[in-house]
Amino acid sequence: MRSVGVGLLGAGTVGAALGELLVGHGPTIAERSGVELRLRRVAVRRTAQPRGDAIPAELIVGDPFQVVDDPEVDVVVELMGGIDPAEALLRRALGLGKPVVTANKALLAHSGPELFALAADSGVELLFEAAVGGAVPLVRPLRETLAGERIRRVVGIVNGTTNFVLGEMAERGLTLEEAVEEARRRGYAEADPAADLDGDDAAAKAAILAGLAFGVDVRGHEVEREGIGGLIPTDLAWARRAGYEVKLLAVLEQPGRRDDRLAVRVAPMLVPRAHPLASVRAAHNAVFIEGDAVGEIMLYGPGAGGAPTAAAVLGDLIDAAQNLAGHVASRLGPLRRVALVGPAERQARHYLRVEVTDRPGVLAQVASVFGDNGVSIQSMEQEGLGDRARLVFLTHRVGEANLVDTAVALSKLDAVRRVGSLLPLFETETQDSSSSPLPADRRIGR
Amino acid sequence: MRSVGVGLLGAGTVGAALGELLVGHGPTIAERSGVELRLRRVAVRRTAQPRGDAIPAELIVGDPFQVVDDPEVDVVVELMGGIDPAEALLRRALGLGKPVVTANKALLAHSGPELFALAADSGVELLFEAAVGGAVPLVRPLRETLAGERIRRVVGIVNGTTNFVLGEMAERGLTLEEAVEEARRRGYAEADPAADLDGDDAAAKAAILAGLAFGVDVRGHEVEREGIGGLIPTDLAWARRAGYEVKLLAVLEQPGRRDDRLAVRVAPMLVPRAHPLASVRAAHNAVFIEGDAVGEIMLYGPGAGGAPTAAAVLGDLIDAAQNLAGHVASRLGPLRRVALVGPAERQARHYLRVEVTDRPGVLAQVASVFGDNGVSIQSMEQEGLGDRARLVFLTHRVGEANLVDTAVALSKLDAVRRVGSLLPLFETETQDSSSSPLPADRRIGR
Repeated sequence: MRSVGVGLLGAGTVGAALGELLVGHGPTIAERSGVELRLRRVAVRRTAQPRGDAIPAELIVGDPFQVVDDPEVDVVVELMGGIDPAEALLRRALGLGKPVVTANKALLAHSGPELFALAADSGVELLFEAAVGGAVPLVRPLRETLAGERIRRVVGIVNGTTNFVLGEMAERGLTLEEAVEEARRRGYAEADPAADLDGDDAAAKAAILAGLAFGVDVRGHEVEREGIGGLIPTDLAWARRAGYEVKLLAVLEQPGRRDDRLAVRVAPMLVPRAHPLASVRAAHNAVFIEGDAVGEIMLYGPGAGGAPTAAAVLGDLIDAAQNLAGHVASRLGPLRRVALVGPAERQARHYLRVEVTDRPGVLAQVASVFGDNGVSIQSMEQEGLGDRARLVFLTHRVGEANLVDTAVALSKLDAVRRVGSLLPLFETETQDSSSSPLPADRRIGR
Repeated sequence: MRSVGVGLLGAGTVGAALGELLVGHGPTIAERSGVELRLRRVAVRRTAQPRGDAIPAELIVGDPFQVVDDPEVDVVVELMGGIDPAEALLRRALGLGKPVVTANKALLAHSGPELFALAADSGVELLFEAAVGGAVPLVRPLRETLAGERIRRVVGIVNGTTNFVLGEMAERGLTLEEAVEEARRRGYAEADPAADLDGDDAAAKAAILAGLAFGVDVRGHEVEREGIGGLIPTDLAWARRAGYEVKLLAVLEQPGRRDDRLAVRVAPMLVPRAHPLASVRAAHNAVFIEGDAVGEIMLYGPGAGGAPTAAAVLGDLIDAAQNLAGHVASRLGPLRRVALVGPAERQARHYLRVEVTDRPGVLAQVASVFGDNGVSIQSMEQEGLGDRARLVFLTHRVGEANLVDTAVALSKLDAVRRVGSLLPLFETETQDSSSSPLPADRRIGR
C-alpha cells in the first residue's frame, strides 16, 4: 500500500481533531482509500504546549517552513488561517510540487485565483472543501458530479453563527444581542462576532463559490454584503406569520444565458417556508444549486466545529494522496474576470419596517411616498406601541433602487422615527413572482 | 488533452439526455475535467428508430457486446436496466479492464457485491452514482469526503414517486389512487407503479446503500419493506396536525459501536417537521447521514428524470475517464456479510389507526388490548363517521413486536372493523424520545 507523508500547519481545534482521525481511523482510511496517511511533521506557535497522543511531541516544530520543506512531507495541510504567513507557505509548497489542503477562506477570498493558477502551473492540487460550507460536501459535487452542467444559480447559507442567531430570534423571540450571547455560550460565536454578523465571512465564502461554480474571479472585498445587525424580533415574527424564514443568504447567479456577468451578494432575505433552505437548522450550512440539466440540488451539513471541519479536511487529504499517483485532477481556473451585476438591476418583492409617530394622516403620508417612488404595496400591518406605531410593508416586485429612494424619502418625513429592516424576498424558481401570500383585499397603496 | 472513447448501452430517455450533454457541453467538460469524452458506439434495441443529432446514426448497433468489445471504447456506460443481459455485459467489460458506469439499481441490488469484487480484481472502477438517489451527489461524498468516518445511521428518501404521492395526499387531501394518477399524469409514476408503492424500488436502493455506507453485503430481496398502499388521507392529515410529515424512509443503522450487525428497513414513518427530511418536496430524493465526526449531512436532489440522471452518469463518466490515467480509486468491497437486526429488537413510538363500530364501551375494550400487550398510549383522537368511528393512537416508545401483537388482538374484537396504518415515528438523534408532542392530560391507557 502506498504511504503518503502529511505535514500539518497549525494544530488548534481542527488540527487536533484531524490528528485524532488519522490515529483513530487509520485502518479504515487505508481500507477504503487504498492509501496510508502518515503524519510526519506539525508546526505550531506554542511548541511547549502538550498536544495529546494524536500529535506526538517529536513531530512538533515552531517553524512552519520546516514542515513544507521536509522531504518526508508529501502533502501539506494548512489550518493556520489568515493571509500572512499562510500565503507564502502555500506558494512554497505548491512551488515544490506538493499538493495543499486548506481550510483558509480568508486567504482564498483574498488571493485564491493566483494560488489556483500556481497550483495548475505546478501540476498539483489545491483542495479546499473545508473553506466553504464547513463539512458540507460541496467542492467535489460541484467540480465532478456537475462538471458538465450549466449552473444558473447558487444560493448558500454559509455562515453557521448567523443562522443560529436568526433561528433563536425566530424560535424564542430573543433580541439579536441575546441570541448572540446564546451562540457564544454554545461555542457557535467568537468573542468578537462582527465578521459573522456583518456578512464578511459569508462574503468571503461567496467569492470562493463564484470561482467554484461559475469559474469567475471575484474577491471577498468585491462582494456586496449586508449583515443581520439591524434585525429585531418583530421582523422574524412577521416573517413566520407570513410563511417565511429570515436567512442570511449568499446568492450568486448569471443574469441570463447570453449575459456573461455575475450577480453576487450577501443579504438577509425572506425564504418561503416550503423551500429546503428554510429548514436549515441551528448552526448548519447548506448550498442550493440550480442547474440546467440536474435541476435542484442541496448539500447540507455542519457549518463549523473541529470534528466536522477535520472530516472535510481528511476527505481532501485522501483525495490529494490518491491523486499523487497520477490522477488527472479537476482544477479551478483560469478564472475569468467579468462585470458584476449591481443593485440597480435587481428586482424583488421586499419587506420594509418603518417606525412612525402614531397620529392621524401618517399612513397616508407614508403610502404616498411609496407611490411617488413607483413602489406598489402588497400588504401592510400596523402595530401600536403607545405614541408610536410600527408599520410593516410587503411590496410587489420592484427595482431595489426605487426602494432605496423610498427609504431615504421616508426617513425625511417628520412623522417617521426610523426606517428599519429592508429584506428582499428570495424568489424560488418555480414560484410565480406575482402571486400574493396575503389576501388581495389587504393590498393598499397604488 | 487525453481523449476517452465512450460506449453506450441503451439510448432511452437517460441515454439521449447523456448524448445531448456530451455534444452540447463538450468544451465545458474538457475545460473543467481535462479529458475529452468521445461517443464511439451505441447499442439500442430498435436500430432503425431516429435518435436526433446527439446520437449519430453511424454509431448505432443492435448487439451490445459489439459496443463492449470495440477497441475504441475505453469506458462502458450501461443504461439498459434489468439483470439479463446487463450482468453479462458488465462482467465482460470489467474482464476486459474497461471501467463501467451504470444506473442499474436492480442489477446492483441483485449481484452488486460480485460485480464490485470483479471490478477490484480487474483493477478498474464500477461507478453507480445514478443508481441510488437519482441525481443526488451521494456516492462520492460517502466514499471520499466521509472516507475516515464511522457512519452511525443513513436515512434516505430514495423513491421520488412515493414522495410525490405522499406530498399530494398531505397537501391536497387526495386519496392514494388520485395521487398516483396525478403522478402518472406528470410523468413521476410508471404505468404500473407497484414496485414504487410497495417499497421494492426503495429496498433495492437500501441494499446498495448498505454496501456504500457500511461495507455490508445486503441484497435487495433481504431488505424488510413496507409500502404506502395502506395509507389514507386521514393518516396524513393527522400527521400534519401533530407536527409530522409521512415519508417513505429507508433506514440503515448499526445497533451499537460493538455490535457488528446492521438494521435495514424501508417503511412509511412519521418525520418531525423540523427535521430536514420533512422538507423534501415533490419527487425529490434526499439522504441524511449521521457520522461520529461529521455530525449530520444531507444530500438532496431530483429523484429521477432523464436530464438529472444523465448529469449524474456524466459525473461518473468524467471520473472514470480521469481515473484511466492511473488514479488510485476508492473502491467498494470486499463487502462483509453480517446478521441483520430484525423487527423484534426495534423500539419506537407508533401511530396506529383503528376503525371501530361506534357504541358504548368500545374505547375501553380497545384500550385494554393495548394494556394487555404492554403498549402504553400517549394520545388518542376519535373521529365519528356515522355508525363507525376512527380511532387514531400515538403510543409511547414500545417494542414493535408488542404492537404487532396488539394489532392482531384488536383485529379479533367484534367491534373492530379494520386495523389500519401502523407508522413508526422516526426518532431524530437529538430528540428526547420520552418527550410528548401532545399535552400530558390527553394521555389515556396505562
